[in-house]
Amino acid sequence: MTESPTRTPQPERTRLMRQRLLEATVDSLVEVGWAGTSTTVVSQRAGVSRGAQLHHFPSKQDLVVAAVEYIAERRREELAIDPDELPESGRTRVVLGLLSHLVTSPAFLAALELWVAARTDPDLLEKVAPFERRLGRETHARAVELLEVDESRGRNRQLVQATLDLLRGLGLAATLTDDSARRASILDAWADTLDRELER
Amino acid sequence: MTESPTRTPQPERTRLMRQRLLEATVDSLVEVGWAGTSTTVVSQRAGVSRGAQLHHFPSKQDLVVAAVEYIAERRREELAIDPDELPESGRTRVVLGLLSHLVTSPAFLAALELWVAARTDPDLLEKVAPFERRLGRETHARAVELLEVDESRGRNRQLVQATLDLLRGLGLAATLTDDSARRASILDAWADTLDRELER
Repeated sequence: MTESPTRTPQPERTRLMRQRLLEATVDSLVEVGWAGTSTTVVSQRAGVSRGAQLHHFPSKQDLVVAAVEYIAERRREELAIDPDELPESGRTRVVLGLLSHLVTSPAFLAALELWVAARTDPDLLEKVAPFERRLGRETHARAVELLEVDESRGRNRQLVQATLDLLRGLGLAATLTDDSARRASILDAWADTLDRELER
Repeated sequence: MTESPTRTPQPERTRLMRQRLLEATVDSLVEVGWAGTSTTVVSQRAGVSRGAQLHHFPSKQDLVVAAVEYIAERRREELAIDPDELPESGRTRVVLGLLSHLVTSPAFLAALELWVAARTDPDLLEKVAPFERRLGRETHARAVELLEVDESRGRNRQLVQATLDLLRGLGLAATLTDDSARRASILDAWADTLDRELER
């Protein structure tokens, strides 16, 4: 009976170690990109032994894909807002602001590194593509809910898709320069446009 | 007098060699990405001696930035259309189609590799940022001309900017999956929206 009652139980310790590894992977992707990220660098950052790291994630691909799924899960939680709690006035602009966090966060930068690496790496693409498709569908469904639109009406479906593609483009632009003022002004205009163009 | 009259003169030979190097750089970025592109690989692809390559472009950064400027110049030529030659009917959709070539071409993929590399490389970013700003302004001005809008009216300026950001987002999405049908449907809806929302 060497275990003290305050010691963290094994399953919880494993969960926390995985979490540290995944967060260190995201930080590494954001700071030094795909090329600079290695399993060695990540285990050092996370303070986890190489052996333990390799046990959980045998390759860099496994680690990075798991890390991007992990932050996507966290992004989803950020969007888990009760639509009824959104203000009536200026609601569309508030929703665009919430959605724009998805493309200006470290999560987006880490995902961008993964996408670009996957473009020229068929093995990686095979792991990334199904997950990205699922995430795309989920984000679309969430945007529809938050905007409270009926997708079967008019061109609502295309307008919601265009909104998400617009945001992705704004996110990409933001990686090179801080253009938050320009982005805000575009989202103001786009909110007005959606309010007129969406069929309610 | 060893030179035959049909021999290509020196300045022309130099120009062609530079062009071969720049085109080989773009091809390499598209096929194997930033990480896989090296000056050695590019000089082999271009059939140019290492010495000659290093004389024209002393570093990978010089080579890649020059290559992306070179293809941007070619993209600009593609857009050098007389606005009077565009059809009256369905004009906005035609312009969106022309602009969408900018983000579905090898030029966009090469530029994307450069942008993502520059995000985590301050030296590279310093070379890339001024050029990207200039290119952004020029593309915006060209879009305004082709769409025949007065930017001082209403929210025309923001809507043109949103159009270019939307296209960038569609271009990024297209790097992972061939979604040309989805893109066409979004551009149809976007053209209708612009036709109603732009103040003429």
